[in-house]
Amino acid sequence: MAAYAVEPTATAPLRGYTAEHSASEVQWEQKFRALPNTDNLRENMRRLSARPHHVGSPYDKDNAEWLVAQLKSYGLDAKIEQFEALFPTPKSRKLELLGPAKFTAKLEEPTLAIDPTSGQKSEQLPTYNAYSADGDVTAPLVYVNYGAPADYEELERMGVSVKGAIVIARYGQTWRGIKPKLAAQHGAIGCLIYSDPKDDGYVRGESFPEGPMRSAEGAQRGSVMDMPVYPGDPQTPGIGAKPGVKLIPLNQVQTITKIPVMPISYEDAKPFLLALGGQVVPDAWRGGLPLTYKTGPSKVMGHLALAFNWDRKPLYDVVATIPGATFPDQWVIRGNHHDGWVNGAGDPISGASPELEEARSLGELLKQGWKPARTILYCWWDGEEPALLGSTEWAEFHADELKEHAVAYFNSDGNGRGFFRAEGAHSLENFINSVVKDVQDPETGMPVWKRAHLAALVRTGRGGEGEGSGGAESRNRPDTRIGALGSGSDYTVFIDHLGIASANLGYGGEDEGGGQYHSIYDDFYWYTHYSDTDFVYGRALAQTAGSMMMRMADADVIPYQFTDEADTVHNYVTEVKKLADTMRAQTKERNMNIAEGAYKAAADPKKVSVPPPVEAVPPYLNFGPLDQASDDLTAAAAAYEKAFAAHTASGDSAVNPELIKTERALMDPNGLPNRPWFENMVYAPGFYTGYGVKTLPAVREAIEQKEWPTVDAQIVRTADALEREVDVLKTATKMLSGN
Amino acid sequence: MAAYAVEPTATAPLRGYTAEHSASEVQWEQKFRALPNTDNLRENMRRLSARPHHVGSPYDKDNAEWLVAQLKSYGLDAKIEQFEALFPTPKSRKLELLGPAKFTAKLEEPTLAIDPTSGQKSEQLPTYNAYSADGDVTAPLVYVNYGAPADYEELERMGVSVKGAIVIARYGQTWRGIKPKLAAQHGAIGCLIYSDPKDDGYVRGESFPEGPMRSAEGAQRGSVMDMPVYPGDPQTPGIGAKPGVKLIPLNQVQTITKIPVMPISYEDAKPFLLALGGQVVPDAWRGGLPLTYKTGPSKVMGHLALAFNWDRKPLYDVVATIPGATFPDQWVIRGNHHDGWVNGAGDPISGASPELEEARSLGELLKQGWKPARTILYCWWDGEEPALLGSTEWAEFHADELKEHAVAYFNSDGNGRGFFRAEGAHSLENFINSVVKDVQDPETGMPVWKRAHLAALVRTGRGGEGEGSGGAESRNRPDTRIGALGSGSDYTVFIDHLGIASANLGYGGEDEGGGQYHSIYDDFYWYTHYSDTDFVYGRALAQTAGSMMMRMADADVIPYQFTDEADTVHNYVTEVKKLADTMRAQTKERNMNIAEGAYKAAADPKKVSVPPPVEAVPPYLNFGPLDQASDDLTAAAAAYEKAFAAHTASGDSAVNPELIKTERALMDPNGLPNRPWFENMVYAPGFYTGYGVKTLPAVREAIEQKEWPTVDAQIVRTADALEREVDVLKTATKMLSGN
Repeated sequence: MAAYAVEPTATAPLRGYTAEHSASEVQWEQKFRALPNTDNLRENMRRLSARPHHVGSPYDKDNAEWLVAQLKSYGLDAKIEQFEALFPTPKSRKLELLGPAKFTAKLEEPTLAIDPTSGQKSEQLPTYNAYSADGDVTAPLVYVNYGAPADYEELERMGVSVKGAIVIARYGQTWRGIKPKLAAQHGAIGCLIYSDPKDDGYVRGESFPEGPMRSAEGAQRGSVMDMPVYPGDPQTPGIGAKPGVKLIPLNQVQTITKIPVMPISYEDAKPFLLALGGQVVPDAWRGGLPLTYKTGPSKVMGHLALAFNWDRKPLYDVVATIPGATFPDQWVIRGNHHDGWVNGAGDPISGASPELEEARSLGELLKQGWKPARTILYCWWDGEEPALLGSTEWAEFHADELKEHAVAYFNSDGNGRGFFRAEGAHSLENFINSVVKDVQDPETGMPVWKRAHLAALVRTGRGGEGEGSGGAESRNRPDTRIGALGSGSDYTVFIDHLGIASANLGYGGEDEGGGQYHSIYDDFYWYTHYSDTDFVYGRALAQTAGSMMMRMADADVIPYQFTDEADTVHNYVTEVKKLADTMRAQTKERNMNIAEGAYKAAADPKKVSVPPPVEAVPPYLNFGPLDQASDDLTAAAAAYEKAFAAHTASGDSAVNPELIKTERALMDPNGLPNRPWFENMVYAPGFYTGYGVKTLPAVREAIEQKEWPTVDAQIVRTADALEREVDVLKTATKMLSGN
Repeated sequence: MAAYAVEPTATAPLRGYTAEHSASEVQWEQKFRALPNTDNLRENMRRLSARPHHVGSPYDKDNAEWLVAQLKSYGLDAKIEQFEALFPTPKSRKLELLGPAKFTAKLEEPTLAIDPTSGQKSEQLPTYNAYSADGDVTAPLVYVNYGAPADYEELERMGVSVKGAIVIARYGQTWRGIKPKLAAQHGAIGCLIYSDPKDDGYVRGESFPEGPMRSAEGAQRGSVMDMPVYPGDPQTPGIGAKPGVKLIPLNQVQTITKIPVMPISYEDAKPFLLALGGQVVPDAWRGGLPLTYKTGPSKVMGHLALAFNWDRKPLYDVVATIPGATFPDQWVIRGNHHDGWVNGAGDPISGASPELEEARSLGELLKQGWKPARTILYCWWDGEEPALLGSTEWAEFHADELKEHAVAYFNSDGNGRGFFRAEGAHSLENFINSVVKDVQDPETGMPVWKRAHLAALVRTGRGGEGEGSGGAESRNRPDTRIGALGSGSDYTVFIDHLGIASANLGYGGEDEGGGQYHSIYDDFYWYTHYSDTDFVYGRALAQTAGSMMMRMADADVIPYQFTDEADTVHNYVTEVKKLADTMRAQTKERNMNIAEGAYKAAADPKKVSVPPPVEAVPPYLNFGPLDQASDDLTAAAAAYEKAFAAHTASGDSAVNPELIKTERALMDPNGLPNRPWFENMVYAPGFYTGYGVKTLPAVREAIEQKEWPTVDAQIVRTADALEREVDVLKTATKMLSGN
């Protein structure tokens, strides 16, 4: 293996730093990266995951208090900020298959002797989906695959309706909250979500405890709140929920499911799947159980009865502050949640524990004389699992300050063994790349950036087709592209609601994770046997995120970079144009096929087969404003870059308050159609994907949802947002070039 | 549904017919298509599949004699032509998993009370692979997925060797004979082939007898002879094996496997799969059993002991002849085999029975005064299952006559419910299209051509991507494209060894077939419950193939058409050029990735991972001769078409003997590299695919197998073959235009 210089002799100064300042920053960062300690990481995890610590549990509060005590012992100013939120927990759960061979689902994950914390029954939340509606329903069952929009189209083609049925969907592909939302929209009255062994069980690897994957009776807890409408406390959208705040009455809350929903294991699901009649499902719908998957409906009835305690519970956010020495009013924020569904060793402690080790190490640096230029906030959020509660309420409460002061938010949410991955605002793409060039990958010894960059070349290329085609761009582009942020963790309120440049960071891809997710087995035993067992990637995460905090906090000029962003936005514009063109061509062709009777000709008369409906051909849309805005952003970014390069040596920091406005400029106070809480016109979680991002969401979703008359207006709004950023950039450029 | 005219008023005369002759032909064909009777088809199948009828069995001979008697009763001149061939049958079979929990495989398909012929144990061949070598081996096991070339590359990447091991491969993807061939090439000493439920078991549909799919103890018999080298009697390549012919000694036969091979059920396979250690397999390698598939090797040993009776057995080909009234020396040939692995209701009787009904119907027409212009041969081949024995020996024996007289060969090999499909020489593409425009689809009432054409539009289009892109060509091209012939049935000797324009015909795609294939359950019970249960597609096949026989036999000028062929050859030339370009680009990129250490960077150090080897970058090749020949063929085909159109009204038939040479011209007497029996330079079964076709095989396989120094010469040989056809076409064109 070639020898890689992991701590390169920095010939060029760090972006946003004068040469002299850069040299001292490099030294401080090197000192910092030597500090995180794997033994501490292990002990942090052991402590924080020792007992179940979900919202409202005794150990959730205990952990928060312990975190504060630890932070204080590092010499940091730390406190709990308390909020509250609606957090339903099960009062009663019943699931049966009626008929001659009546079956009652166990709905329980067994204690394993080998796994010491799996038996903490009295403190564990039972398996359930938070924010499921109460309900008692009896109905035939229909299998809906992943319960995504395309699955319902496929069912319609097979003549199967879910109206009045209980759907049984498998976990995966789409975020779980989308499944009951779509099921209800299609007329279902109940929803079961089970873990198929093809998705995270024996098909992928040996089952726990022989291996890391989900066992026969393992089930996945999780929220099903309609978070693409808004996350956080359902009763206080847009408002930080301090005790006493005015609440929306429960029966007016939009984000609770319309039908009862229940997560089950595949052992509990099997009798329901075996009861299904109807057609054999399409190939892609088949799971890994040894049975013939069919659509249903079932002849026998399912019975699902759920009741919840609709209580408000306290949230304990932990916040530590290191005041900035030079720019105290510019804040750099770090966060990872501390609540878990049960013991939560992987999710979230494998991220929260390195974050604590970062804080300890920064405490050490402070003792050695380092002083951050900007104010640093280290946060451990409560209530992420139910609905990003702690981060959302905190950021809504501090919204005005954050809009004025926040420079960047760096999130993590668990960590594993393997490759660095980041999603984030593309104004941070260059910055993120720059930091991971200075962190060493523990397994290969090469810089983290180098490993991720090289591995991506082969992973996209491997297996033929790719190799020889796509490699050139990623081989030659200086910055490895980062993904866009959807949702699924605490960055959501920062980027989507407040317009703060945010990123989500982590390592993974080598540990065979997934099978423990949101179960009682996501614990210290599982993590130390199957994930980052020696905590070297926990240390790498602490080194990575901590270096980012320091480099962002100390820079003379905030090291945002906009040419990467402009390039990415240009790609998004190309995508939405292509999407409209493809849909137009497909609709024309499909309509022609319907008219010619092609679907009838292709149908097997012994099976029900319904041709798709004739649809209006999508109109030609006016993408002009978006093309113009994309071009303008490209030009403005290039001009800024030129001015920035000329200016760097001066160290003058006057431009920073203007720079902070660049991401804010993308916000439209009217928000996205039907969900005003989401104001970012470039990034949003998909209304029908949940976690999955939709970039240029107002435009893209109007096209995807075929709301043709509205598209042109959304193009204009989106273009306006980009033009607002162009204006900010032009001002910043003028300030840098002093004219 | 629109009303379709199924018997169109033929305004334009049939191709190759004068207007007057066309009108009478249309009438005779209409009379013919009214004759096939579904009751007869059912009774033919009941009789022919009543008992096991493999090569050498009493009922195989009995069926041949019954066929002759039936044909004679129709007034036809029929006889048995007897040949002989090596046909090994099991003497002893043993398969064990050694070690503490010793397991002995059952190797037996159980009798089912509901299925009356499944209990004919004394006449059934046990499960085995014909032409497996004798052997007694004890070794660890390695799972090789489908055992295709790419699977061995993948194993190498995972650091797994099969040297000295018994491989366990699943049925599917590649022809079964390729699996032991490649296993032996990689150093394995034994080979098990099992039927995974993902490929033809419960994953696809309910298991027999509740449904059509393969049950837990069902196994697939079949030949593993190295037929891509040559099919037919292994001891007499190129020579029709009449008794007394000189034989190659057994120990010099090239086409018998190098290692013992055994087909097993998944119930027998399970303990072997569970014994495998090593890495979890890649996603695409996972089958449908409820276990974690791993590569192996196993710690415990497998023991496979096989011994065979290496006997020569008689073959009873049945041949009926209807002498041609006008061109007795021009032969149109029809064939389907009559031997089965066991009862063989689907394979081959569902094709052989309609063929018999065609013969009966033609007998009726003869009584009504119809006389074919050309000589018609109806053949029922023996010994197709072991190695295309009956057809190959017959055609080798009659090679000289066939080269001189044969106009076309129309094959079928079983039949099912659904859509018409054809593969064949592209000089027949227009002809095949013309006939299926006149046959009615029994389920929709529309012409068979129309249904297949429309269904293809939706099937390529459905699911998004395709629709809106690929539809235009198939919508507007007057002739639906037919596939090219690989191997797997009795057309092989005709097209690949003798250069006779051939086609393979059948209906299917709606019956959920596959699970009964080559098992004791492929019988009357299975077929009449799960396939073409009312024999309407049997009737459609008889109507289709019989009409083709008549139309080809009666034409004044043989209705070959060459612009379709030229268009297809042009596509093939484009494909092989693209193949070389893609491989060059991929090799460059892969070499670059290896040099940069990308594979090492991407590897998980906790798993064995071996970078691919650096390979020589493929040279730039001289495709000039092939481009030139393709252009010349295009021009010659267009010129012929013009002359043909001008000539049609005359009815002059002098050109026919020249036309017969067009397909012969593609033959190179030196054959393909390493397999001289295969002489066709446009079509061949793949050396490493078996069934799957390789067009322009000398060129394509030299590229695929990276034999770079040989490619240019193969381009020249292939171009020469095309230019020979061009010359024939030019002569034919001159003859037609009379100058």
